[in-house]
Order: sequence, then structure tokens, then C-alpha cells
Amino acid sequence: MEINLRRLDDAYHMEASNETGETVLTDGSPAIGGKNQAMRPMQMLLAALGGCSSIDVVYILGKQRQPLDDIKINIKAERAENETPALFTKIHVHYDLYGKLKQEKAEQAVRLSMEKYCSVSKIVEKTAEITWSYEVHLPEEA
Amino acid sequence: MEINLRRLDDAYHMEASNETGETVLTDGSPAIGGKNQAMRPMQMLLAALGGCSSIDVVYILGKQRQPLDDIKINIKAERAENETPALFTKIHVHYDLYGKLKQEKAEQAVRLSMEKYCSVSKIVEKTAEITWSYEVHLPEEA
Repeated sequence: MEINLRRLDDAYHMEASNETGETVLTDGSPAIGGKNQAMRPMQMLLAALGGCSSIDVVYILGKQRQPLDDIKINIKAERAENETPALFTKIHVHYDLYGKLKQEKAEQAVRLSMEKYCSVSKIVEKTAEITWSYEVHLPEEA
Repeated sequence: MEINLRRLDDAYHMEASNETGETVLTDGSPAIGGKNQAMRPMQMLLAALGGCSSIDVVYILGKQRQPLDDIKINIKAERAENETPALFTKIHVHYDLYGKLKQEKAEQAVRLSMEKYCSVSKIVEKTAEITWSYEVHLPEEA
């Protein structure tokens, strides 16, 4: 796996590209001269965590023939205060799962992702406490 | 810090947004039904690592009044084979630094980032061996 980064301005705005040309952008904090033109790298780490876990959950529910209509994920993270570097201390991942899903299947999918399959979670959990919750939103009766 | 993810298709394509509305996209592997419409989450983790470290290097060289004209970063990573999850085992980060820079200042900036300041590096190094190298590209004589 290979990623290349190039600078887009005279400060901290960077573009990262993968081997097939897909890109993401990062920027630095305004406190040091960044311009908020893109996600900060530590935010991007959380985005990768959510993206990674969403793949597991969608895949597992599909294998179990659970009709997932939609999925949303909210991630809240706390960082160490007054430390450099300021690692994450606590991360909470909440899943909103839409569709006529069985509660136990939904819970199992989320649990398998966070406790077993998600590579990003397995990396990040070495330095942060990761907790999770979920809610199943059943379709309204017609 | 808070990140929200929503699904963009009926498979693995997700959009993550931060509190100021900046977004990044992820997608799953074609092997499981993804469509290569965006970076994979583990690629995004490397992009975050490069973005994070670039901020340190630009900042440190700026503080030292070293005239950095441009910076490019190449990241190569190996993952565990035949394991689930497949964490990174080795990551090499190479910095190309352009400008009339003192070698020792360039090296110090990279070293401080990778060994001390970069939060993403400090998280990822718990599960992967991270190595680095750099090259200073002096301006051509006029």
C-alpha cells in the first residue's frame, strides 16, 4: 500500500493520493497558520475508524440477510489535555442503523466490527479507550 | 472532536464530516462489493499520518527560519498477511524537502515529528514498525 502527499499552499494544506488516484485533503490548525481548508489529520483518523467499521457492519448484516436501509455513525473523541502529542484518550462510536433489523443481529455486527474485525479500531485501541453504542430505527408502519 | 458519517450509496461508500463541514470519503474493497470511489480506510490512516507529520515538519522548519519551498511525502506500508484484521506491520515514511535547507535542520525536523510530536505516528507505532528517511533538494544555482 502506498500513499503520496504533496503540498497545495505555502502552509499546511496537503493532498494525499493512493495508487488509483483517489485523494483526500488535510490542513493544519489556524493557531499555527493553517486555514481550515480541510480536515485535520486527527479528525481524519476518526473518519478512517468510522469508514472502516461501517464496511464491517454493512458486510456482516448483508451476509446475515438483514435489510439495512441506511447507516449513520457519530464519533466523539477526547484528547489528552496539555500534552504533546495529544493522543485520543476516549472515543465513543455510535451507530444509527435503519431498516427492519433484528436487534441481536445489529448488536452482533457492531460488536464483531469493534472487537474483532476493524483494523483501524485495533490500531487505535492501543492508546485510547473505545466504547460503542447503537440504535436500530425500524421503518415506520405503512 | 466529533465526526459524523453518512452512507452515499447502497454499499460501502461513506462521507465523513467534521464540525466545520469539511468532508472526506471512504469506500470498501471491490472484493466485497465496494466501487473504488474513494480511499479505503487503511489508506486514509496513512494519509492522516503523512498530513500530521507534514504539519510538524513545516512548522519546525518555519520556526528555525529554514526556507522550505516545497514538501512531498511518500508512505509505503506492509500489512499482516492472511490475518483478520490485517494491521500494518511496517511503515516507511520518506520526506522530499525542497529549499535551501541545512541538512541537520531538515533531519531534526523529521526526527522530532516522527519520534516526538506527531500524534498519529504515536498511535500507529504501537502496532507497526515505523521507519523514515529524507532527502533535501537544494535549489539549482542560477
